[in-house]
Amino acid sequence: MSPQSSIDHAIEIIKRGADELILETDMRAKLASGRVLRIKLGLDPTAPDLHLGHTVVLNKMRQFQDLGHTVIFLIGDFTSMIGDPSGRNSTRPPLTREQIEVNARTYFNQASLVLDPAKTEIRYNSEWCDPLGARGMIQLASRWTVARMLERDDFTKRYQAGVPISVHEFLYPLMQGYDSVALKADVELGGTDQKFNLLVGRELQKQYGQESQCILTMPLLVGLDGVEKMSKSKNNYVGITEPPAQMFGKLMRISDDMMWRYIELLSFESLGTVRQWRSEVDAGRNPRDIKVAFAQEIVTRFHSDKDATMALADFEARHHGGIPDTLEEVTVQSANGVISIVQLLKQAGLTPSSAEAIRMVEQGGVKIDSQKVSDRALTFAKGAVVVAQVGKRKFAKVSVA
Amino acid sequence: MSPQSSIDHAIEIIKRGADELILETDMRAKLASGRVLRIKLGLDPTAPDLHLGHTVVLNKMRQFQDLGHTVIFLIGDFTSMIGDPSGRNSTRPPLTREQIEVNARTYFNQASLVLDPAKTEIRYNSEWCDPLGARGMIQLASRWTVARMLERDDFTKRYQAGVPISVHEFLYPLMQGYDSVALKADVELGGTDQKFNLLVGRELQKQYGQESQCILTMPLLVGLDGVEKMSKSKNNYVGITEPPAQMFGKLMRISDDMMWRYIELLSFESLGTVRQWRSEVDAGRNPRDIKVAFAQEIVTRFHSDKDATMALADFEARHHGGIPDTLEEVTVQSANGVISIVQLLKQAGLTPSSAEAIRMVEQGGVKIDSQKVSDRALTFAKGAVVVAQVGKRKFAKVSVA
Repeated sequence: MSPQSSIDHAIEIIKRGADELILETDMRAKLASGRVLRIKLGLDPTAPDLHLGHTVVLNKMRQFQDLGHTVIFLIGDFTSMIGDPSGRNSTRPPLTREQIEVNARTYFNQASLVLDPAKTEIRYNSEWCDPLGARGMIQLASRWTVARMLERDDFTKRYQAGVPISVHEFLYPLMQGYDSVALKADVELGGTDQKFNLLVGRELQKQYGQESQCILTMPLLVGLDGVEKMSKSKNNYVGITEPPAQMFGKLMRISDDMMWRYIELLSFESLGTVRQWRSEVDAGRNPRDIKVAFAQEIVTRFHSDKDATMALADFEARHHGGIPDTLEEVTVQSANGVISIVQLLKQAGLTPSSAEAIRMVEQGGVKIDSQKVSDRALTFAKGAVVVAQVGKRKFAKVSVA
Repeated sequence: MSPQSSIDHAIEIIKRGADELILETDMRAKLASGRVLRIKLGLDPTAPDLHLGHTVVLNKMRQFQDLGHTVIFLIGDFTSMIGDPSGRNSTRPPLTREQIEVNARTYFNQASLVLDPAKTEIRYNSEWCDPLGARGMIQLASRWTVARMLERDDFTKRYQAGVPISVHEFLYPLMQGYDSVALKADVELGGTDQKFNLLVGRELQKQYGQESQCILTMPLLVGLDGVEKMSKSKNNYVGITEPPAQMFGKLMRISDDMMWRYIELLSFESLGTVRQWRSEVDAGRNPRDIKVAFAQEIVTRFHSDKDATMALADFEARHHGGIPDTLEEVTVQSANGVISIVQLLKQAGLTPSSAEAIRMVEQGGVKIDSQKVSDRALTFAKGAVVVAQVGKRKFAKVSVA
């Protein structure tokens, strides 16, 4: 690829699934410099048990690694050791050094399922925040105005609603920004809700005479319910340490529409492949095929190839050999109280002809209630209700009248 | 005195000249405890050359010392070493440790002219501010809300006017308040413009489980012009290191009205004495007498008794033996082109009779143009204009017609 088309390609990867890249021109300049870029992700070391929602940004960092850059996990141990000093948030007790390191290790181990550990730095911000001292904190605080801080969306709302904002809450965005200065970050990733804080870093770097970081905001992953963001508390999540079969089963439950969003944010398949899948589905291919492939990819990532294969087999077995949850219901007419398997398949529209029905039975391509049928002379009595399957994809719930 | 009347007496002294005491009931309780109270005055160690305006709070501290309490000069070295980190205020460069100590020493030496050094502590707030560290600063900042900080009058105005307020400016009132916590202050003195910051200290102490300090705000001293507050830049000040004669002369220039305010805020004469002076002046006594006594007291305080006596003599000599700046002008009639000193004094109304005029000349109580006259035969030619003085207080500018 030419340098220009290589940058275009990188930009396409970087922007995949992202909400916002500020600024693309800066990003292009950084890419054009040929430097190994430093990609920062700040982490609150309090919730080390990751679900797929957490991996959205990890995937993005992996993409940066694949483009040759260094990613940095910035563990916010400094403020975590303080907790919520206002005492209003009882769910944020201070963490000890040991807890933080255990959490960070747990996090890193999980994140290593997505990232290349060899291209990953782990840093703790107490390294530069403690040496700031009280004086450094005052100097840092001098670099932003009250009015601009109150422009942060949640601060604006709370101030207008009369909900107290403690003065220390104004220090946190500045400290997060100072982390970028200390790390000389080129890019900072974060959720969309982090945009303000990421921009503080961008500007502080300029004030400290550095090249400003680009910021890349990633959307929140919608949970399995398709409504709320993925979260433990909503029980609409897929944990990355869940057993393969459970993980696979949950992913097979997402809607055909939402599947594309999951693929955009979670799959490592190339954009070319994804585009091709879309056109195949548009042309009539069953989206379930794509969903299976995607679920297999995710299980493989967090477990193994073999686990993915077993999860699929397990899934199909649990779901009556792969019977869809919703089945077409048809009624077939018996003659003298019975109907042959061949007539049943033909009348139910599962085969175009009796001859084809016979052929499918003989080839082992027919299942009744998930059991393979090999006897073309099999009959069913009037009143019977069975699930009939021909090949991998044709199903019907058949009542014999 | 009974304990109750002793407290009443102390309260009267404490409230003398003050703008506000918050809360008097708390102050009474502290006095009633019998403890040696800790009286705090925060100082910015940047302007060590004191004028009388600065001594208003020093006098108040001296009164506390005289009541048996300990006063503390709290040198704000911590923030002075930072300067104005926003860089907007170029007049506040950071000070070095050495500069601060020189300034503090200069300040203390000057303040010792008012205060009893033996009952005075000098403390530097870096003693407890530096150990706070970045974490302590965050914890401190968590103890106040943004909304309550914006209630400070100057912050409100600047915010509404769109004039930038740096976030670090919100930290300063908290640090000043933390000084009170560290010192376990019972009373904090300050200018009226310091009221908000003093109240922060009062509340922080409560949050830290201490008894809250009382706050005592003192007014700004009006300068010699009677209009602006006393300040170097307005050149309406009396520096406490000015030479005695200069100091005395400046004080003699204040108006008779303003004199009472100066006495209230600067004199150590008891309230009883001041009340008596007022009634004497109401009954006809020349207020200049009181002004002289006051100016003598101030010169004695900052120089010596002897300097005060010499300053008065010098002043009277310079002012034509004590001639007022504005003189009654009278015209007397010569006879045959001349007039005797006796006739002149009588016609000018400076003596009730010729006999009295003769007696005053013979006793040496008459001056013409500041020169003592001892010859009762002295005559003046028509057209002469002289300043005639009888005794200490009777003056006239006399034209001979």
